[in-house]
Parts: sequence; C-alpha cells; structure tokens
Amino acid sequence: MKLKVKDIDIATGGPLVVILNREDAMKFDIHSLDRIKVIKGNKFETVVADIATSSKTVSPGKIGVYEEVLSSLNLKNNDKVSIHLARKPLSINFIKKKLDGKRLNKKEIDQIVWDIVHNKLSESELTFFVAACYTNLMSINETIMLTKSMARHGSILKLNNLNKHPVIDKHCIGGIPGNRTTMVLVPIIASMGITIPKTSSRSITSPAGTADAMEVLAQVTFPIKEMKRIIEKTNGCIVWGGSLNLAPADDKIINVEKTLEIDAESQLLASIMAKKYSVSSTHILIDIPVGRGTKVENAVQAKRLKKDFEMIGKRLRKHIKVIITKGNEPIGNGIGPALEARDVLWILSRDKRKPIDLERKCVSMACEILNMLKIKNCESKVMETLNSGRAYDKMKGIIKAQNGNIFDADKISIGRFKFDVKASKKGIITKISNKDISKIARIAGAPANKGAGIYLHKHVKDKVKKNETLFTIYSESRQKLIFAKEAAKEIDALTIQNSHW
Amino acid sequence: MKLKVKDIDIATGGPLVVILNREDAMKFDIHSLDRIKVIKGNKFETVVADIATSSKTVSPGKIGVYEEVLSSLNLKNNDKVSIHLARKPLSINFIKKKLDGKRLNKKEIDQIVWDIVHNKLSESELTFFVAACYTNLMSINETIMLTKSMARHGSILKLNNLNKHPVIDKHCIGGIPGNRTTMVLVPIIASMGITIPKTSSRSITSPAGTADAMEVLAQVTFPIKEMKRIIEKTNGCIVWGGSLNLAPADDKIINVEKTLEIDAESQLLASIMAKKYSVSSTHILIDIPVGRGTKVENAVQAKRLKKDFEMIGKRLRKHIKVIITKGNEPIGNGIGPALEARDVLWILSRDKRKPIDLERKCVSMACEILNMLKIKNCESKVMETLNSGRAYDKMKGIIKAQNGNIFDADKISIGRFKFDVKASKKGIITKISNKDISKIARIAGAPANKGAGIYLHKHVKDKVKKNETLFTIYSESRQKLIFAKEAAKEIDALTIQNSHW
Repeated sequence: MKLKVKDIDIATGGPLVVILNREDAMKFDIHSLDRIKVIKGNKFETVVADIATSSKTVSPGKIGVYEEVLSSLNLKNNDKVSIHLARKPLSINFIKKKLDGKRLNKKEIDQIVWDIVHNKLSESELTFFVAACYTNLMSINETIMLTKSMARHGSILKLNNLNKHPVIDKHCIGGIPGNRTTMVLVPIIASMGITIPKTSSRSITSPAGTADAMEVLAQVTFPIKEMKRIIEKTNGCIVWGGSLNLAPADDKIINVEKTLEIDAESQLLASIMAKKYSVSSTHILIDIPVGRGTKVENAVQAKRLKKDFEMIGKRLRKHIKVIITKGNEPIGNGIGPALEARDVLWILSRDKRKPIDLERKCVSMACEILNMLKIKNCESKVMETLNSGRAYDKMKGIIKAQNGNIFDADKISIGRFKFDVKASKKGIITKISNKDISKIARIAGAPANKGAGIYLHKHVKDKVKKNETLFTIYSESRQKLIFAKEAAKEIDALTIQNSHW
Repeated sequence: MKLKVKDIDIATGGPLVVILNREDAMKFDIHSLDRIKVIKGNKFETVVADIATSSKTVSPGKIGVYEEVLSSLNLKNNDKVSIHLARKPLSINFIKKKLDGKRLNKKEIDQIVWDIVHNKLSESELTFFVAACYTNLMSINETIMLTKSMARHGSILKLNNLNKHPVIDKHCIGGIPGNRTTMVLVPIIASMGITIPKTSSRSITSPAGTADAMEVLAQVTFPIKEMKRIIEKTNGCIVWGGSLNLAPADDKIINVEKTLEIDAESQLLASIMAKKYSVSSTHILIDIPVGRGTKVENAVQAKRLKKDFEMIGKRLRKHIKVIITKGNEPIGNGIGPALEARDVLWILSRDKRKPIDLERKCVSMACEILNMLKIKNCESKVMETLNSGRAYDKMKGIIKAQNGNIFDADKISIGRFKFDVKASKKGIITKISNKDISKIARIAGAPANKGAGIYLHKHVKDKVKKNETLFTIYSESRQKLIFAKEAAKEIDALTIQNSHW
C-alpha cells in the first residue's frame, strides 16, 4: 500500500510511531499497536501503528509521521512511502514470560534491551516490562545479565589505551539535599594520580544534581571523546552522564518508573552498575545514606541492598565497597546549584566558611577509596591533598579542562533576593526534614535558577536563640521568593525542642 | 501562567494530554507526566503534561492541545488559557499499592475506575494497573468490587419499567471460528416470550464477532434508548455493545491487555460480569469451550474459571450456569460475517444446508437456559420453536426492528472470488486448527470484507477421498484470494490421517 506522508510536527520522545486513517487500517487489517514496515527507497523502519480516531488527524491515503520516524527515514511532507504489515518485536513474548513470573535468559534480556534502545516498544509494552521486573523480582543472575546488556547497548568509555589502572567510580543513592561529595572527592583522588572519570546526573526532583552544581563552574556536556581528553589531562572529570549515551536503555526504564515513583530494587542495582560498567571502572564506592526522606529509609533495607551490591560486584569482577551513612539531615550548608558549588570551593580553598560535615564525609569516603587500593595512612594523605592546596589546584585544572572560568567561591553568583527564616523559640534543633528543605529550595527556583536555594545556618543538635536565623532562602525572582517564604511558613522544616541550655 | 493554544490536530484516543515547551516547563517546575489544570473562563480540565522534546512542536508561550482537551474546554487556536500545577490523580497511589501486592478496598477501586473512565490516567499508569492485577491476582472480593464499579461507571439498561423478568444473557469465552450461537439462541428464547437483550462484540483478532455477522442482516449500532424500544417490541435484540457505553472502563482495560495479549483471569471475570450487570440480566449462561487455540486451553483451567464464575454470580445475586464445551474445531460451516449469518438463517429456516453441529450446540444451550428457569421438557419445546418456524419469525421481527431487510439466506452476498482447497490424500480428518482457519479467513478479508471467509465442507472425524474439497475460500478481492490461497498452501489447517476406510 502506498501512502502520502503527513508531517505531524510532534516528537513522541521515544517510540517510533505513525498514524493511519481508520479506513486504510481496516482495508489492510492493521490494528492499533500492530507493527508496520515503512519503506522509502531502499531505507525502511519498523514502527508502531496508531489508528486515528478522527479523520481530521490523518485522512485516507495519508500516513501521519512523528519526528523520530521522519528523521530516521529522511521524510518530508507529501513524500510517498509504502507500508507492509510486520511482526511484533520478539521481546514482547519475553516481557509476557517475565510477567508470568518466569526467568529470562541472556538472549531474551538482550533482545528486550535492544528493542528498548531502538525505540521498538510502545509506552505500554515498556511499562509491562518494568512492572514485570518490579512484581516478579529479578534474580541476581537476571540482574547481572540486564546490567551487562544495558551497558553493552550503549557507549563504553575505554581508558585501556591510556594505560590507566585502577579506574575509580563512586555513587550515592540519593535523597539528601546538599551532599555534594563528588565535587570534593574527584579532585582529591585525581590529585593523587588516580583516575576517576565521574559522570553525574542532573536533578529530577531534588534542588540540584552534581551536574547542575558543577555547571555553575564549568561546562558539563561533552561527547565521550572530549571526556577522554579531559581525563587524559587531569585524571578526572565531573561531567553530565545524560549526553554520553551510557546505558541508554536505563534512562528509558527510569522514565517509566517515575510514573509511579517506584524503584524496583533489581532495576536500581542494574541501573547503577550499568553506568559504572560503561565507564570501565575497576573500584567502586557506593554510599547508601539512610534516614527519613532518603531513597533507603531503614537500615534493614540498606543492609540487604549492600549485600546485593557486593554480590553483583563480585560477579561483574569489580571491587565494590558499600558504606551506609547517616542521612537524617542535609549535608553541607548550601542547597541549590550555586550554593552547593560555593560550599565545595570553600572546602577546597580551605576557607573558614567551609561546611565541616561535608568535608568530614568527603575525607572518610576518600579514605574508603584508598583502602580499596591498599594505600595506607589514608586520612593524613587525604588531608594533605586538601591542606597543601593540591586538591584545589586539581579542581582548577578540571574546571579549566571543562572550559570553565570560575575558580573562586566569591565569584559565584547567588540569588539577589533573600529572606531569613528565624527561630520561633529558644531550644535545640532535633530534626531537619530533607523533603521540606528540598521543597522550599525548589519553590525558590532551584535547580533551573542556579542561584536559588537555601543556606542552612543550623544543623541538628545545634542550639538556637529565639529569632536567630535558621536558614536563608535565596531566589533570582521576587515572586518566587514570596512563594518560598510562604511555603517555609507553612512547613516546619526544622524542629526545635524546648531546652534551657 | 498564561499560554496560547496550539491545536495540534491529533486525538490521543483516551488520556487528556497537553504539550508544553521545555523552557516554560522548566520555569514552572513542571515535569513530564505532572498534572496541570488548564483554565479557560470558568471551565477547567485537569490533564497530563507532556514536555516537547523539540521547540518545533510547541514554542515557548504556547500550549499544544490534543483533540480531547480541545473539545472538553471548547478551545480554538490562539485562545489564551492559564495553567496551574495540579495533584496527580489519587488512584496512582492505589495502583502502586496493588503493584506492591496489597489488597484494595471499595473506595480505592472506585477511584481507579473513575479515573480510567474520565481519561485521567496516562497510558503508562493504566498499564501499571493492568499489570498489577495480572501479577498480583485480585481476590474474589476485589473482582466483585471491580465488576460493580465498572458497571456503575457507565450506562445501565433498566428494563424494570417494562416489567420484564427474568432477563436472560449469555456469554461465550471466545476463540472458536464459526460458533455463531447467539444469533440462533436469541430468537429461540425470545420466541418463547422470555427477554434476552443481547449485546455483542465485534471481532478483534477473529474472522467475525457476533456484531459483525448480525450486521450482514441488520443495523447493530443503537443508542441505549433504541435498544429498549427493540426489546419492547421483540423481547430480544442482537446489537453491538461498543456504542452503548456499558462499563466503558472495561474497554479501556482490554485495550491495554491487547498489547501483550494477556488475559488477567480476575479481569476476564470482571469484564464479562460487568457487561452482564449493565444490562440488568438475572440469569446468565456462560459457555467455556476448551481446545487448542481457544482462550481456555485445558480442562483444569476451565473448571477453575467455572467455579470462580459461580462464586461471583452468587455474590452478585445472579443465577449463573457455566458449561464447558468442546472447542477443538470450528463450529458451523461458515467462517466470516456473511458465511456465518447464512449458517444461522439456514438453521432458523430449516434449510437442508444447515450446519448440524451448530444447531445441536444451540439447542443444548437453549435447554440450559430453560433449565435455569425451571421449565420442563426443554428439548422438545426448543425444537418446536425451530420446526414450527416461530424462532425464524422472531428473527425476522428482530431484523426488522433493527432496520434490516435480509431475511433469506440466499439473499446474503458472499465473496465472488473463490478457491477450493482439496485433500492431498485419502484418509480421515483428525484435526482442524482454529487458529489456522481464522488466519486464512482473515487474510481473505474477513471481517472487514463481510463476504470473505471460509466454508468448511469437512469436520473432524469425516472421511475424505483424495482431491475432495476440504474447504472453500471466499474473497471480495482477487488479490486477497491469492494471498489466502498461498497461506492455505503453507499451513496445514486440516490434518488428514491415512486410513483405508
């Protein structure tokens, strides 16, 4: 059947889809969600068929084509294409198998990942896969196969030709505002001559991801080739993982999980390990903060996760160290991209204003990494890189290699509208809610407005006087500051207990 | 935030969706799949937000609006609307709860069904619900609540004011080609003065549904008011259920199930019973054919399903009789809308060419219905309605009431292109594949081409000579006949065992 292309001017953001008129579909016995081969010259693409419910969208004899298919086949309005009924992707049978609670083998998992990466599954089909993995729990074996498969069906950073070994990586299972350890750890480790090619994410629901904070100082979006150049020069990098095509299937799966805010545990493991696998790391430090409002809310769950990580690490032949840390309150004082970047530079430049809790956490994590490498006297060695200024110099080198030019904490621009939230009474801080602090910082404009966020003047166990400032809200817009102020009034982000200290 | 409407000229076919530009979304911290309230004057609608991946689709300051939302708010291109962030539908939490294997209560199930009917869930969210019900098996209690909820959130046919009681219904759990029992049963039962308001489906993957076959003789699409008028006149009807808005949530759920061709058992029960509940039936006959290629492939599964039906029937206070029948081969000789309608009229008009197997099945099913009503000597009474011509007259009355004018089997137009498939050897027919027969009939053009399909000259256990005709393929197009012939050559739809009879 020959049809005329109608450019429908919309991207699906994933699945390859075309729309047929109901009459044409009837004639050729094509149903919604059937697969058809769209052929133009000697190129073709197998896509999902959608049937128009109104002839306004696509009239008989036409085929509505979404952007992904337009660009894949290089189609223009009114081009003629021919279509044929095609088979559904093989992986649909395997998704059904998993939904029925059966185990999948390597070939089947590979086929599913391939179909995900190549946008061959409809939104609903992909959702069935995620639901199947979530409800029918994947075995460790399946998780390992999924990990490797996701990594292999994407770009792999190969540093072998640089003769770099070991290759360090770290990951924090998020949920805590502040906590910008990567930006301190990478220069410490790299300044000791050890390779640490770090890819980070942007914020989805938090006030800042590492990539958002690093972007205050330097560029973070690079092709994989450029990333190699930066590492070659400085031993490290702090770049955004999103543009590197590392384990792209993972990103698509996470998008579906966000729908219900579920985290299949096996999926979480595979997701993290696939990215680590993709950068060819040999030694990986995993940080699991535990506390209210973090991803892992109790110690039992954290310990199980730790065990699973260690098991998978062994099977993937990676050295893995998992630490369970305190996650009951924000770490560092700044919350929001610019405020967090400033904390980092204050630590590296040994400024008096540096947040002690964040520094301590970074030092102990650096020690864990050195321990994995059997390096002794780690704490004094780590402190030496900081106090000598070598870690700071390394950070400057990385910022420069990433085309940045802000090396000085005082050059970082913070939102010009601000408001101090004060203590309503005298007492001791007993609780700071990660979720509430995040919420207020986001309402103030973070992470989209880099200078927006919160600066915490107090932490848990601190004493406060009545009317003493608890935290300052920064915003780049007067209106957003008002909204954030209102939110702060409604929410008691900090809990003060009466006390006669 | 005020935005200008861009009519994007496409219907989603369900979910209420708008598209925002990435910049606008960032500014207001709106993420893909967030809910926003779109306000125009004093009307508003809560919809799913999609974020454009290219600015070509929706430029900053604009909002791309799909047809469902356009018509709900009566919007035109360049209208100004304001938007606010809204809460996600409540049911998302309940779907997550079910996905976690927990039981849902009446309120929670009601909320989910309400959100499904009102298009408040995205495709992915609805898929998670279907997957959750499939993998975490619903309890009988949940199934009953779902059944009632689906029926209540839709139209209900109330015959009370017609003083009709009992009200008969029947359902066959499909998969067998031919098997057009409804079109024989309805006139038999109605001719005895008993009410049988039958709604049927169109084919999805089979060569014909009852609605497709009935449509050869009369109109089948009616509003519920017209359906009442037909029943008042004739005691029965054979109409398409699709336009009546009976348990509309069910149709949306089935659409998602089709993606993976899964049938959640609890869903199957709820789906069937909701439709029966909607037409206020009091006595229901359920036919479960068992055999290769039918929906229920083994006796154990059939018996379990029978038990569940009986249990649910009791709880819904409906008289239910479940029969398990033979489903190892097509029933009747005609396969395809016109060929099946012809079989039906041949039985009713007592034509010599009537298919005996279909007649026998219908007579025994009619007896089961009369037994439920405690009517004695049912077989002779049923045969009397047939032999006296009263059932045929009733069928003519129903056809007339449904604006039809074909009462005579020989007036039915059958595809003019035909081909006889012959026996390759002498022997006995040991197997006829339901799936293969369906496939060939569909390739020939059924159900879209009403005259297309297959006429079986032989059934299982029949003797054949070499070159005797096994079945005839009919088609309305020369090309499709060629395709069907080729398919018939490749597939051995009938198995002949060597035998020296």
